[in-house]
Amino acid sequence: MSEMRQDPTTKEWVIIATERSRRPDEFRQQSNRERKPHSIECPFCPGNERLTSPETFAIRDSGPANTAGWRIRVVPNKFAALNPQTVLRRREDQMLFRAVQGFGYHEVIIETPLHDHDLPLMSNDEILLILETYRQRYKALREDERIKLIVIFRNHGERAGTSLLHPHSQLVALPVIPFHTRRKYEEAIRHYDGTGRCLYCDLMDAEREYGKRVVLETEHWLVFQPFASQTPFETWIVPKRHAPCFASVTDGELPELAAVLRRILHSLYTLLNDPDFNMIIQTAPVEDENTPYFVWHIEIYPRLTTPAGFELGSSIFINVAAPEETAPVLREVVAAS
Amino acid sequence: MSEMRQDPTTKEWVIIATERSRRPDEFRQQSNRERKPHSIECPFCPGNERLTSPETFAIRDSGPANTAGWRIRVVPNKFAALNPQTVLRRREDQMLFRAVQGFGYHEVIIETPLHDHDLPLMSNDEILLILETYRQRYKALREDERIKLIVIFRNHGERAGTSLLHPHSQLVALPVIPFHTRRKYEEAIRHYDGTGRCLYCDLMDAEREYGKRVVLETEHWLVFQPFASQTPFETWIVPKRHAPCFASVTDGELPELAAVLRRILHSLYTLLNDPDFNMIIQTAPVEDENTPYFVWHIEIYPRLTTPAGFELGSSIFINVAAPEETAPVLREVVAAS
Repeated sequence: MSEMRQDPTTKEWVIIATERSRRPDEFRQQSNRERKPHSIECPFCPGNERLTSPETFAIRDSGPANTAGWRIRVVPNKFAALNPQTVLRRREDQMLFRAVQGFGYHEVIIETPLHDHDLPLMSNDEILLILETYRQRYKALREDERIKLIVIFRNHGERAGTSLLHPHSQLVALPVIPFHTRRKYEEAIRHYDGTGRCLYCDLMDAEREYGKRVVLETEHWLVFQPFASQTPFETWIVPKRHAPCFASVTDGELPELAAVLRRILHSLYTLLNDPDFNMIIQTAPVEDENTPYFVWHIEIYPRLTTPAGFELGSSIFINVAAPEETAPVLREVVAAS
Repeated sequence: MSEMRQDPTTKEWVIIATERSRRPDEFRQQSNRERKPHSIECPFCPGNERLTSPETFAIRDSGPANTAGWRIRVVPNKFAALNPQTVLRRREDQMLFRAVQGFGYHEVIIETPLHDHDLPLMSNDEILLILETYRQRYKALREDERIKLIVIFRNHGERAGTSLLHPHSQLVALPVIPFHTRRKYEEAIRHYDGTGRCLYCDLMDAEREYGKRVVLETEHWLVFQPFASQTPFETWIVPKRHAPCFASVTDGELPELAAVLRRILHSLYTLLNDPDFNMIIQTAPVEDENTPYFVWHIEIYPRLTTPAGFELGSSIFINVAAPEETAPVLREVVAAS
């Protein structure tokens, strides 16, 4: 029997259609990724630094900028969707056709010198460095007062939208607030005005109370698969402390986040056999960094199914696995990790 | 140079990033679809009628129901996301977790007895029969007063979310109005209240006046690639007569629509080498079939690129081709067809 569920954060519906569901082990992927620690053609491999734009940030053991010797390297995306040199100007000549010149930042965070050292296989310390780099870049780019929202994300595998194997994340700093973000805010404000409480904090309490969708709880972090998950094994990592902005994560909290993220990604890797996935840091717009009604969080979407015409046409996702059924499976693997 | 564009119908932004653009012929696909007119394992092939649920509608040359002899056959989806036998009941016990039992209809329209006779290769008459079937099913299902919105869509190829080769469309009849649809309506109402005119009619006038994104215009239909296209070669077919509901299409208009749809799909097939694609009929909710501010239309999305973490996280699409550049290419192929 299927069920339609309304996402409490967006009011969008999903259909949890367990008729077509598979046992969790049937979601295992036929992964066959190339494995080699170095590739002479790869623009992200050490020795090929000239193939990228000059770096904007790096963590180095040795060497000057734009040479080997780095542990993490940040460069402007060669095929940047947005460019900081562009003049930010609105085109308002035609009422229906509103456009803004493509001002913004689009950076690539090269996570490791090793070509095949995927994030789920890294150590806590390696992941910690990446998270610190995210935070550093966030803080650097929000200084540009034209920037409204910073989106940090990661694509792993072709089904997740990348054919580049070398482990990397991306950061896009936008001069506008997406309408979708505005809408989530409206919902959160409505909840706040009605109850005096933060929707995301209430959601964490409700998930903790229900329990079945919780994957892991540590001192500072709660991991769960949301009630209205769009895809099988969609997983959120949320700080238990009310904090709208990712960059407010403290040095005290970050090592635990690195450990939690490693355990979750490694468990998904084991359980689903290195699935393609997207990871997104959802954080408040720069001007709302202190808002009482939003909590930043990490969303992980294994790409096990393909959104089709129905999803495009209705924006209702059909999810063939209920989070109450997949969360315990992941929880078990995480507990053993 | 890239540009951010705001979709006038949804207020969502897209990034038109021509830095990474390719020439239109570089979008050609490596298509290698199985070709055989009959498959003994295929549940949609004649002779295998017992492998599907009993048909709800068919156009037949001969034979009783659920045997061979049909030209088009409509059956409940075997893996239905929604089911008409389910009792429609809301679950309101938990404030944050709203759910509705999975009531609704989910049908498959088997478009031809021939296993490999793809829609883009069909004749006008064959496509006309399919459109008439869509209209018949729409009219039949809207009689159920629990139904709020009917979504007719088509997935072609694995990147578009189907592994079933046999040509088919689907119909989902929903007991709720998706939030995304509500939002499009809010925008359309705002425009109507502000101007006294239909946003979609104004949009057609603006596209016609601008001209560069128009692919084809016939007596009753306008075909264009929208200003804020989400993906390369996104193409809309819109009736020039103000009509919110797909089912209001008349017998006089339908043959021309069949011919237009065939020319567009066949031209995309030729130009892009049988690309995977989704096709969606966007029509008003049942209760708004006579609204003055919406026009139903067909949206075609060739699946040439993969939405990744940025799209998931921001709902801003990065489109690597400007519709002003792709529309003339398609227009030329259509003109020669």
